[in-house]
Amino acid sequence: MRERHVISQIAALTGPSSHPLLVQGIGDDCAVLSGQIADDHLVTTDMLVEGVHFDCRWHPAHLLGRKSLAVSVSDIAAMGGEARFALLSLALPSRLGDAWIAEFIEGFVSKLAEEQVILIGGDTVGGDKLVISVTVLGGVAQGKAIKRQGARPGDGIYVTGPLGLAAAALHLCQNQCFKIEDVAMSPWPNLLKALLDPEAQSAMGMLLGSFGGVSAMQDISDGIATDLAHICQASRVAAEIFADCLAPHPDLENYCRLVGLNPIDLQLRGGEDYQLLFTMPPRREPALFLACAAESLPEPQRIGVVREGAGIWLRQGGAATEITFQGYEHRS
Amino acid sequence: MRERHVISQIAALTGPSSHPLLVQGIGDDCAVLSGQIADDHLVTTDMLVEGVHFDCRWHPAHLLGRKSLAVSVSDIAAMGGEARFALLSLALPSRLGDAWIAEFIEGFVSKLAEEQVILIGGDTVGGDKLVISVTVLGGVAQGKAIKRQGARPGDGIYVTGPLGLAAAALHLCQNQCFKIEDVAMSPWPNLLKALLDPEAQSAMGMLLGSFGGVSAMQDISDGIATDLAHICQASRVAAEIFADCLAPHPDLENYCRLVGLNPIDLQLRGGEDYQLLFTMPPRREPALFLACAAESLPEPQRIGVVREGAGIWLRQGGAATEITFQGYEHRS
Repeated sequence: MRERHVISQIAALTGPSSHPLLVQGIGDDCAVLSGQIADDHLVTTDMLVEGVHFDCRWHPAHLLGRKSLAVSVSDIAAMGGEARFALLSLALPSRLGDAWIAEFIEGFVSKLAEEQVILIGGDTVGGDKLVISVTVLGGVAQGKAIKRQGARPGDGIYVTGPLGLAAAALHLCQNQCFKIEDVAMSPWPNLLKALLDPEAQSAMGMLLGSFGGVSAMQDISDGIATDLAHICQASRVAAEIFADCLAPHPDLENYCRLVGLNPIDLQLRGGEDYQLLFTMPPRREPALFLACAAESLPEPQRIGVVREGAGIWLRQGGAATEITFQGYEHRS
Repeated sequence: MRERHVISQIAALTGPSSHPLLVQGIGDDCAVLSGQIADDHLVTTDMLVEGVHFDCRWHPAHLLGRKSLAVSVSDIAAMGGEARFALLSLALPSRLGDAWIAEFIEGFVSKLAEEQVILIGGDTVGGDKLVISVTVLGGVAQGKAIKRQGARPGDGIYVTGPLGLAAAALHLCQNQCFKIEDVAMSPWPNLLKALLDPEAQSAMGMLLGSFGGVSAMQDISDGIATDLAHICQASRVAAEIFADCLAPHPDLENYCRLVGLNPIDLQLRGGEDYQLLFTMPPRREPALFLACAAESLPEPQRIGVVREGAGIWLRQGGAATEITFQGYEHRS
């Protein structure tokens, strides 16, 4: 059964893996990790289902392999931690041929290398629809994990990069009968990269984790109207976003003009950007920006402020409109 | 979206969970576990797909919930460890109603309680077919995890309980147009329990882990012809099973007589028994049996011997037949 071999193929491609915490990797009932470390451990899991979270008609296999790992690594970054180990489970339909699987593996392996993550286990089974389940384990200095609770009135609200690009790309793919062959030819590579091959903000997550001034954080998977609502609920505060601060990425602006969409809708409600969303007292900004410069990381952008109360509010001109939870829902 | 609530429903049903290692459970991007422990950590993941690993026509939802956790806890037991934390991801088809989901959750929660495992995260998404992905984390005393490698020529081969019951039950369900209503009425409760509601050998796994004399171990998920082959490959040895030592469970014997099957085929090749299969020098038997008696656990049965060479051999009368890897394959 070919699917039995996926995990061992990945292990063979990545070569012998060594990590001070790794006692036993792939090939037994369990992986064994040493407990001899003062760090706290982080654990996260995501399930991606064909037709719900991705579409094989336009998602090249190797980019899907990369994204499968990136979305879970993003959760580790969102705690301020470092991703270390991954487990990959696949339900593989027989219609996906060996070439498709080889490409998926190649992509997954390239992302493992980029993120310096070691595959320590998994499971591969048959199925009608492709289902990908990834668990990632990471570490963070003891007591330093950044949670969703912790945002305080007066804190600034920050994002680490442009929003709405993945949502625009999804619109592009769904409305233009997009196919895999079109990906390389498209005049919208930045939009497509955001959807098909997103980057986890790993270096920025670790910087924010060790920086010390961040009061709450999560990654943006469902759109800030929803993701910020999670932070506000956990922290029992309200948030106000300033429309003026949401300068759209030029490609987002151009695409929206072309197809008659409003960029701000995609920025607020579009999911899957996998940027980090965090809160911090604004007086820490100069120190943070210095730290970013030292690591050649882009400065996060302040887009709003934490208030007392409840709900997510968008301030546009003089008026504030509530937008709580008006985020992205995966399609099914 | 109802599926968003499955993990939080489970969290609500299990109540506030406390564990010396648990810093942050469900409700953030990641769970956080303290690193302040000398134990080694164990990690395992399994994916179960409807129509491949289970069939909702005859698998009651609450028993499927229980089994979903049990199969991964069994992997922790197979390393001699203790299961502690679980993550549950579900792809839920819309045809499964709220009552079905509530029953599944009830079963999963009852198994969490039995195994003293805390749910620390997960993901629930839409899908056409039910897919269940469970990751379990556990612990074992430093350096004491029992691997597949380590079996030595002369070691005895042991199993912790009866074999082939789950395979007989699968035959029963598949060949008698079995339905959920039939489960409670069936004259074969022991067979059905093995298939629908298997027990992980948790107490026995921990005893074998701390006992010290066990040279190799794994759980029986694919049948001993296959599972023992994994131990033998990892340990670079051969195994000889004595047909005379494979006394079938009375219900297996009766069922096989009724339908014209050979019990030894099911015992060797039937999967999903989730008993433990281990090797140990026979001189340690008296001490092990005393330890079992002290914990009111049944004595493991010796069914064969480790030899130099390669392959799995069945000795029946004077002849030895090779049966390497002639195990159970999940249906797809």
